[in-house]
Order: sequence, then structure tokens, then C-alpha cells
Amino acid sequence: MPLILGPDDVKRATDMGRMIDVIEAGIREQAAGRVVLPLRQNLATSNGFFRVMPCVMRDGGRMGIKIFNGSVEHGVRYIILIYDERSGELLALMDAAYLTAARTGATTGIATRYQARADAASVGIIGSGLEARTNLEAVCAVRKITRAKVFSPNPDRRARYATEMSARLGVSIKAVDTPQAAVKDTDIVVVATNTTGKTDLIAYYGQWMERGQHVNSIGATGGQLREIDPQCFARAARIQVDSLAQVREESGDSTAAIAAGTWTEAKFVELPSVVGGQVLAREDENQITLFKSVGTGVQDVMAGFAVYEQAMKLKLGTQVATFLEHKLF
Amino acid sequence: MPLILGPDDVKRATDMGRMIDVIEAGIREQAAGRVVLPLRQNLATSNGFFRVMPCVMRDGGRMGIKIFNGSVEHGVRYIILIYDERSGELLALMDAAYLTAARTGATTGIATRYQARADAASVGIIGSGLEARTNLEAVCAVRKITRAKVFSPNPDRRARYATEMSARLGVSIKAVDTPQAAVKDTDIVVVATNTTGKTDLIAYYGQWMERGQHVNSIGATGGQLREIDPQCFARAARIQVDSLAQVREESGDSTAAIAAGTWTEAKFVELPSVVGGQVLAREDENQITLFKSVGTGVQDVMAGFAVYEQAMKLKLGTQVATFLEHKLF
Repeated sequence: MPLILGPDDVKRATDMGRMIDVIEAGIREQAAGRVVLPLRQNLATSNGFFRVMPCVMRDGGRMGIKIFNGSVEHGVRYIILIYDERSGELLALMDAAYLTAARTGATTGIATRYQARADAASVGIIGSGLEARTNLEAVCAVRKITRAKVFSPNPDRRARYATEMSARLGVSIKAVDTPQAAVKDTDIVVVATNTTGKTDLIAYYGQWMERGQHVNSIGATGGQLREIDPQCFARAARIQVDSLAQVREESGDSTAAIAAGTWTEAKFVELPSVVGGQVLAREDENQITLFKSVGTGVQDVMAGFAVYEQAMKLKLGTQVATFLEHKLF
Repeated sequence: MPLILGPDDVKRATDMGRMIDVIEAGIREQAAGRVVLPLRQNLATSNGFFRVMPCVMRDGGRMGIKIFNGSVEHGVRYIILIYDERSGELLALMDAAYLTAARTGATTGIATRYQARADAASVGIIGSGLEARTNLEAVCAVRKITRAKVFSPNPDRRARYATEMSARLGVSIKAVDTPQAAVKDTDIVVVATNTTGKTDLIAYYGQWMERGQHVNSIGATGGQLREIDPQCFARAARIQVDSLAQVREESGDSTAAIAAGTWTEAKFVELPSVVGGQVLAREDENQITLFKSVGTGVQDVMAGFAVYEQAMKLKLGTQVATFLEHKLF
């Protein structure tokens, strides 16, 4: 009996601390080499895209697929299907709009766990959308954060972010009126924007980086987007990525850094190697570090299972009668 | 409100004549070059496979994906999701076990329409499973068939096939005790088996082909399967395929023909070129012709829409509340 989970069910079944641990376990499994994760397929539609990201995780017996489509006119719709990898049974179908933001946040949490200074206590946030929220929540789950500052171009939005997130996380958050002010004298930076660097400015510049700071950039996941400038890639001593091949090919920030000559592949480490203990994401207290993410099927499948298990426990969602025939050979 | 269709709903909403026409329209759209159809992704699981076939059809405003998994222990499960290609709305989720057999049959119907002699009136069938049923039904939808013969190794199964399909199609069907007897003196052959050529025999041999005969082979869709021998590829004057790249790479019959030196690429024509009127699948009454299929995403998406539209008309299936958030940019 597959479980159908809508947006509210998924939100209620998301526990950020648990999601971080579950995705980290998945990334550790990936490091052991037993995960099948092809590059995602991106099909052009009349007015946008149709994208599919399947992933098979053999050790944990989990598999699934995220399917999403988007257009400027109609927005984006995400769905995740998860399966028992051994029996082939379809376990759940769920909305993945919030889930995608939550798993992106959780992955930033994992990267921050391995790459921020152990004593990091302050966060500068650029952006005030859903991703800026889930990312801050995840950072707060892995470091004892006491204060944060937020910048977003719209004063109302940044003020609302500060009020709501302060209440939610129990952290003092101040809205500020420039991006520089947001990131100045902070231990951790979160850049979570939709900036393009065309009519607007790029959100974050390498000249603002400070000694010992750890920067997370989770926007600019498409070639037409720009969030951090090439100087960031020059100043960071270590650059952690969730998938080197995808970050290199898919992010507009990468294309710009490659063109500017600040893309040095020797500085890059992949999250599975870091979590698997093969490489260090930070070597000393003074290094500037950068995490750049685009998202992978491992994150989606693990997040889907984390939500599914919690939803079953809390009896959320709608069970539908098994509707897939089981055709034996 | 997405519609969920289980196996019985899909069977009740399948009208073979209509499905043939709908898939043919999709193949015509494919011929015009506005279809995005990547090669399917095949992920290995612990004990089998997880396969995804997305397809975007821009002219008709349709898109979708078939996802299926299988293992020898647990059998196969298929699901199709269909979407409005313009708005991105998820329209339906449906079981695709029967649907896959029906669309394979329908595609054989289209191939037969273009490749069998116009006066073809008799069919020889090798196989008695679900595919042997849907394929015969489709052949009867495109030619005035008056008699058929069926062979399958199990006498009970072939007798049951003859009785049941005679009643269903209003055609005289005789069960016979050798494959040669089934195909002898027939205008159209349908080979629809799971034979491997290892412990069992290959189902059909080129030496049995007769002047003017049209042969459809829809089995051996995997590298470990064998259904027709290399001689078939030598004797056929024209070989029609649904996807040349996939038939060449995925069918064990193709691998064997290539190894035997009977694979002559100049003889091959693709279904979209035939339906689009660019090439002829049969040049005269005397040619022996062969259709070899492996299945494509176009067939799945069009079949999914044919079933969805019929199900809406007949009020079949279960409407579930919209569970995908519509995230605007």
C-alpha cells in the first residue's frame, strides 16, 4: 500500500537533525561505492524542462527517483517515488518541493559539520527564501550558533525572515541592509539566492571572505544563474562539492570561474570522500573554505526515506490501495 | 487532481483500435522531430534492475515517464506517470504491466499496417502469454484476419489461448503442436516468447520464412534472450524497427545476427520514417519482411494518454487530491 504525502505531510514529517544524519549515512554508503547514481537527464519541453534523477542504494536496500518539471510561466513541480530496493515494492509518492529545500539544507549541514571551524558560532545569510531557511536550520543543527545576520534586497522579506527564524531556532537574527554587513565578522556564510548577475548583482563576492570563514553556496544550480564570483574559487583553500562532475558542468558560477582561470581542480574535495574519511575538507583554523552544491539523487532518496519513515510513525499522509501489478517471470 | 489507475482500470480503459491510432499519431510526431526521447537509463540493483524511460512530446503537449524494476525473485513492477507538457501538471499515475503488453501489441499493429501484405488474412503465433494475446488483437485490428494457428510448448496453455482468443476476436484459432506448423502457410507471423536459446530452443528460424510473409518479433528485448535466429535477418528484405539504436544494442537476437554476419544496416527502416512516409517498409508482394521491437518512451506516453482519456470518459480509477505543490519562480 503506497503512501501519498502532500506538502504539509512532508513538512510535518521533516526533522532536520534526523535528515542530516540519514543523508550523511547515504553519503557514507556512496563513499563505499555501492550506489548507482547516473548523471541526471534533462529533457527540454516547449517552455521549460523535465528532469529525472534516479538512484539505487544497494547496501541500504533503498532506491527511488525524483522527477521535476518547470517553466517560467508555470513554476516547478517535484515528485519523489521511493522503493524497497530488494522487493521492488513502491513505498511512497511524495511532494518534493519542500523536501528539496530541506535536503539541500541538510546537505549544507553535513558539509558545514566537516568544513566549518568547530567553534563557529555566527552565521551571515544572503537570501530570505525557503532555502535560506532550511540551510540556516541545518547549520544550527551542527554548530552551536548564537547569532546571525540576514540580507535580502526586499526589506520586508529580510525583516520577516529575522523574526520568524529567530523564533523558530532560538537564535538572535538581525536583518541588515547590505550583503557585506550580513557576512562581515561571521564564522559561517550561507548564500541561498536566485541571482543571475545579469540585471541584478551577483549575491556574494570573494573579496568579502574572511580568515577561517566557511562559505556555503547552494544557488546558481543552472548555467544561466550566478551567485558567487570567480574570486571565491580563488580565495578558498578547499572547495567541497556534492558532485564534482555536476557542479563543474551545471553551475553558472563554475563556468565563470573556469573562464576567469580561478578553477583549480586540486582544491576540490567531494562530500563522499570527506564523509568517508579519505580527505579533509579543512586543514586548519585559518583556511577559508567553500561548499558548493547542486544536489544529487542520493540526497533525494535518503531524504525521501527519512520523511517516509517519520510519516509512517506519525500516521501522516494517505495510504492508497496497491495499484501496481506484481508480474512474475 | 491526479488519477490513479490500477491494473483492472487500465485493462477496462484499453481499446486496442484506438491505442493503435494514438500511438501512430505519436510516432508521426516523432518523425517530425519534435520529440525528446533519450536512451533509457538502466540501473543495476542488488538482484535485478531499475529502469527509467522519460519522453517529452512537444507538439502534442504530452510528457511522461515509465519506471520499472524487476528481479527474478520478485518479478516486475511498472508505473507510468503522465503530465500536461505545457502546464507541468501531473495527470495520472497508472500500473503499466498490462499497458506495456498492450502498447507493444499496438506497435506491432502499426508495423503490420505498413509492412504486411494488404490482403494478409492468416496469422501464425508462437507464444501464448499476455504479449501473444495483445499482439494478435492488434494484428486483427489492422488486417481482416480470418484464421490463426498457435504454438506454445505447453499443450494446455496453447489450447486455452486458442479457445479464449477465438471467442474474444471472432477468428478461428487452432492450437498446433510444433512452431513450424503454426507459421506454415500464414501471411503474418507473431513471435512473442521468453525463449533464451540456452536450455530451450530459439522460438523461430529464418528457414521457415515464406514468400510475402511478414514476421513480427517482440521478444528478446534483453541481451540474455534469444527469440529469432540470425537467418531471419538474412532472409528479410526489409527490417522495420521501433528504435534502431536500441534494437541493435539491447536485443540478444541483434547481437547474434551481428556475430553471424547477417546484420545489414541498409535493410533497416525505423518506424517513424515509415509512418512519416519517408521510406517504404515493404516494396512488393513477394518480399519477406520483419518487424523487430524493443519498446520506446513514445509508445508508453501515448498509450498512457490513450488509457487516461478513456478512463476519464468511463469514470474509472481513483482521483486523489492534488499532492504536488506548485512552486512559482
